[in-house]
Amino acid sequence: MIIVPVDEKEKDDLIERLNYEGRSYRTVNIYDKTVVFLDGKGMSTEHHIKHLYSREFRDRTVVNVAGVRIGESLTIAAGPCAVENEEQVMETASLVKRYGADMLRGGAYKPRTSPYSFQGLGKDGIRILERAKDEFNIPIVTEIMNPEYYEIMENVDMLQVGSRNAQNFDLLRFLGKKDKPVLLKNGMGNTIGEWLDASEYILNGGNGNIVMCYRGVRGIEESTRFTMNIGTVIAAKRKTHLPVCVDPSHASGKREYVESMALAAVAAGSDMIEVEVHNDPECALSDSEQQLYPDDFRKLAKKLRKLKTFIDGMDEKTNIQYQ
Amino acid sequence: MIIVPVDEKEKDDLIERLNYEGRSYRTVNIYDKTVVFLDGKGMSTEHHIKHLYSREFRDRTVVNVAGVRIGESLTIAAGPCAVENEEQVMETASLVKRYGADMLRGGAYKPRTSPYSFQGLGKDGIRILERAKDEFNIPIVTEIMNPEYYEIMENVDMLQVGSRNAQNFDLLRFLGKKDKPVLLKNGMGNTIGEWLDASEYILNGGNGNIVMCYRGVRGIEESTRFTMNIGTVIAAKRKTHLPVCVDPSHASGKREYVESMALAAVAAGSDMIEVEVHNDPECALSDSEQQLYPDDFRKLAKKLRKLKTFIDGMDEKTNIQYQ
Amino acid sequence: MIIVPVDEKEKDDLIERLNYEGRSYRTVNIYDKTVVFLDGKGMSTEHHIKHLYSREFRDRTVVNVAGVRIGESLTIAAGPCAVENEEQVMETASLVKRYGADMLRGGAYKPRTSPYSFQGLGKDGIRILERAKDEFNIPIVTEIMNPEYYEIMENVDMLQVGSRNAQNFDLLRFLGKKDKPVLLKNGMGNTIGEWLDASEYILNGGNGNIVMCYRGVRGIEESTRFTMNIGTVIAAKRKTHLPVCVDPSHASGKREYVESMALAAVAAGSDMIEVEVHNDPECALSDSEQQLYPDDFRKLAKKLRKLKTFIDGMDEKTNIQYQ
Amino acid sequence: MIIVPVDEKEKDDLIERLNYEGRSYRTVNIYDKTVVFLDGKGMSTEHHIKHLYSREFRDRTVVNVAGVRIGESLTIAAGPCAVENEEQVMETASLVKRYGADMLRGGAYKPRTSPYSFQGLGKDGIRILERAKDEFNIPIVTEIMNPEYYEIMENVDMLQVGSRNAQNFDLLRFLGKKDKPVLLKNGMGNTIGEWLDASEYILNGGNGNIVMCYRGVRGIEESTRFTMNIGTVIAAKRKTHLPVCVDPSHASGKREYVESMALAAVAAGSDMIEVEVHNDPECALSDSEQQLYPDDFRKLAKKLRKLKTFIDGMDEKTNIQYQ
Repeated sequence: MIIVPVDEKEKDDLIERLNYEGRSYRTVNIYDKTVVFLDGKGMSTEHHIKHLYSREFRDRTVVNVAGVRIGESLTIAAGPCAVENEEQVMETASLVKRYGADMLRGGAYKPRTSPYSFQGLGKDGIRILERAKDEFNIPIVTEIMNPEYYEIMENVDMLQVGSRNAQNFDLLRFLGKKDKPVLLKNGMGNTIGEWLDASEYILNGGNGNIVMCYRGVRGIEESTRFTMNIGTVIAAKRKTHLPVCVDPSHASGKREYVESMALAAVAAGSDMIEVEVHNDPECALSDSEQQLYPDDFRKLAKKLRKLKTFIDGMDEKTNIQYQ
Repeated sequence: MIIVPVDEKEKDDLIERLNYEGRSYRTVNIYDKTVVFLDGKGMSTEHHIKHLYSREFRDRTVVNVAGVRIGESLTIAAGPCAVENEEQVMETASLVKRYGADMLRGGAYKPRTSPYSFQGLGKDGIRILERAKDEFNIPIVTEIMNPEYYEIMENVDMLQVGSRNAQNFDLLRFLGKKDKPVLLKNGMGNTIGEWLDASEYILNGGNGNIVMCYRGVRGIEESTRFTMNIGTVIAAKRKTHLPVCVDPSHASGKREYVESMALAAVAAGSDMIEVEVHNDPECALSDSEQQLYPDDFRKLAKKLRKLKTFIDGMDEKTNIQYQ
Repeated sequence: MIIVPVDEKEKDDLIERLNYEGRSYRTVNIYDKTVVFLDGKGMSTEHHIKHLYSREFRDRTVVNVAGVRIGESLTIAAGPCAVENEEQVMETASLVKRYGADMLRGGAYKPRTSPYSFQGLGKDGIRILERAKDEFNIPIVTEIMNPEYYEIMENVDMLQVGSRNAQNFDLLRFLGKKDKPVLLKNGMGNTIGEWLDASEYILNGGNGNIVMCYRGVRGIEESTRFTMNIGTVIAAKRKTHLPVCVDPSHASGKREYVESMALAAVAAGSDMIEVEVHNDPECALSDSEQQLYPDDFRKLAKKLRKLKTFIDGMDEKTNIQYQ
Repeated sequence: MIIVPVDEKEKDDLIERLNYEGRSYRTVNIYDKTVVFLDGKGMSTEHHIKHLYSREFRDRTVVNVAGVRIGESLTIAAGPCAVENEEQVMETASLVKRYGADMLRGGAYKPRTSPYSFQGLGKDGIRILERAKDEFNIPIVTEIMNPEYYEIMENVDMLQVGSRNAQNFDLLRFLGKKDKPVLLKNGMGNTIGEWLDASEYILNGGNGNIVMCYRGVRGIEESTRFTMNIGTVIAAKRKTHLPVCVDPSHASGKREYVESMALAAVAAGSDMIEVEVHNDPECALSDSEQQLYPDDFRKLAKKLRKLKTFIDGMDEKTNIQYQ
């Protein structure tokens, strides 16, 4: 049972009562509120809710990543699928920054289907990302596969939980005890309920800095790598106060589909786009068919910003959107 | 083998040669071209293609439905799921016309999963649609389940082939011999290849007046009725010259998701939106949860038009879109 | 509302009352019962049910196809995907009959994804099947795509409704008015509910001679052509009194998987197996990779019969199976 | 590049040559063979293969779990979804052992979709399983979510990697360095290729004691919890030398479907069945609808053994099975 006392006094009264009754409970401070988790049932109070991710808990969350405020205006994270070497990252970072990216993405620890595919540079990759961060003054986001890597990633601004770890609950619990922002992807076989429940593992540890990133699911279509159910993005916006990001690169698997898919995601209400860009896609060590050329990204970023402004500005929009 | 001679002379030469060689062939006139279908293989000519739906055949098709030019600017078809009675249709038609719909949709013959659900008014439903057409000067689109109904539907402007008949090849062949425009939905378990191949059954009969309507597929998501793989819409735009329509009503199954899904579809490049609107959705005899209130449609139509203009106007767009 | 009076007297009383009250109703005779379909609701009687396919209507149905009693012991239908010529059919029929097939299958009208694939021999194909029927004294089953073909198929013993017409309700209604046995496949994107509801269109017309044939659905697996959810077969056995058939040829798409899949289907409770066998699979005009060699079929048929006997004979089976 | 030298001499020659050429390589001993993993390409040798899981590497593997030889005759693991308390485990263990289970399963660390569901007893649960193991002389299998738990699980005989960690590559790599047997489930959104590749992470670390456990995937069916594509089981048997297990409990989600699904799995060639049994299913803290009553298990185990013997004994079977 989750209870959200309306003010300090109600919280104190509740806790006094729980102590008096000898009930087992736990409190967590999140978003300047104190939330009480109560074992068992039977507490009559109007202020209980089912999930911390839910819009019955709060209306809208803005996640601050080193000054980038995700959930306000459109956030764009761009960069290579994998960190391959310093030159590649520096050149790509320089370009995406110039063309308007808010954040630099890049994988140092890569969860690859086959053990014989390029597995990432690991620690060295993190160091390269840090150099790009310093050089171009751009926050970085990279994937964490395991709590062990957390220390190495101290200077990383946002940690991505990938599709294959989307229900790695020990990892999620670990991140819940930190306050570093998390970009939480959906598992490729998960429903929206499972994806949202994954965020609850982080939230109920006290970390509210979560952005939900939809990267499509397995489906029956052969022309795209995964199935981008745009309805899931729309449903997520209605079900959770957390910002919603879309990854059009993995969902489409083809660079020529990325622009249209990103535009659709923004039109559907997405707060953030994470897109793969490589300074030389043809030579990429992974996912070479889906990474954009820098010049494609230049055009894309411009369009996405214009579209976001346009969508937000349309008359009556807000009246309908979250009725 | 499909051969598209570049001019009249080449066509005549080819046919002369085929006759001389005693080969079996068939010609069809479509889009002011003559196409030669040749049994067997072995004809060496540069002008053969694989599919008439393909963009290797032609770049872009505009389908003219009683003056509504689908594939130019955005087309919006709106109206009830099912024709229930004259008052309902007249009132709905009056409102959607006033709010900007280009076409009126409504089902008279309804393919319902269960035989005990409302099956539509049949011929009487067609008559009601015709009255609305005359009264409000708006073209009508309705579903044909069977060639037998064709005569009854003489005054219908566009015939819809529904998801359940998406691979009813006898129906498709029949429509191929007519010139009435067809709105061809995808089967709920079909890949894009199967959907496009379905159009080929109509095209190779000589009817090029086809609009491809994506209504989502079966998927793993529980929060939407079907799975709207926006990637399929994007792929369809690249693979075929035929206009592409999206049906956000069936794909979402929830009226509160319809607006965002329709906006996403337009952002992704959709040429047409077909949306269910009912003058009194709560009392609808079918799909009551997904039909829009007229006032929702008023806002939606305005936004869709604005968005389409905006998307089409964005700098450099065309350079990338169909590279 | 569907009412199943327990005896003649109850039926007469009910109808008298309905006539007296001026209510609209319809009666159908099926399986030696009279069923009353009542418009609207409000009739208080204990003997109403939801669906005629349901096991609340009857326990188990045996469908008699020219003496072959489907639903008693295991029925095996075998034969080529498509009728290609007389020699092919005669040779295949001769072999499958010798090796134990109860019925001969073969497609004369072929619903093919592409209009440029072999479309079947049509009427000539039916005539060839009839000759094989006479020559080898074996009932024949072939696909009907359209009521128009019904007359041509007068001598066909069982009509198959294929996956692409699984929700072609006009065709289903038409077959409901005949008494010819129907082999009803599931649509490739259909749930079990949709599949069972399709049978209701035939049943409520008065034709109870239906065998439900599961041929798999679209899924995420790449190693098989379709996804054979064996759980659907199991669920079907519990939900309907109609016999259940499995088609391992289309579900697997690979002849080397057919035997194991057929064995699994029988172990799961399937009453019938429909399998593609070709006298020369490598040269088949369609689905050449999934058609069995005659000698494979010889072994398969033997094993299936043995397994069925074994499964039916296992102790306690019946206690658990339909608890 | 993976090279499997045919004998000691060839291995020595190869390594000498690699050293001489200064090439980077790694050797692993597995199944009494030495395998050489070579960076880069270009080594001309006939003895290279693509995957260690493949049947081109070896024909068939038997995994020995404390004397239980998985891959020879049928292995049955049974027990509760979750360890709830000592009495429950002892009573269930006593019964499943008596009724013929080879192994006891039970979850101590439970990966639950929601953080508010029962998460398992953790270390205490492991201790309870160990007591049951000692008391009833039955090997135990339990899920490991994280390398950290490995020490606690020292006395566990087989470690299960669950669906949610099926692509947790750090966990797989960790298990590759141990020799404890692993029961590797498929991810609920994974293709067979991804599932097999997951085993390669363990195999190429040197641990060949792996049993592949198929628990179904997400699909379109509503009547079962997951989709048991029996074709995937069949394909797995042909693609890998590792034993294949099926979990009918999670795939069906309904105890009344478990028996038929397990029979189908054995008929399809499954080497092992892992099934959930609870001494009091109605009161289970998780998955109460799919856990069998002990008496159901008694009948099931008997039937499965009989069926396995029958299937293995059928004439000519082997000739066809792995042609």
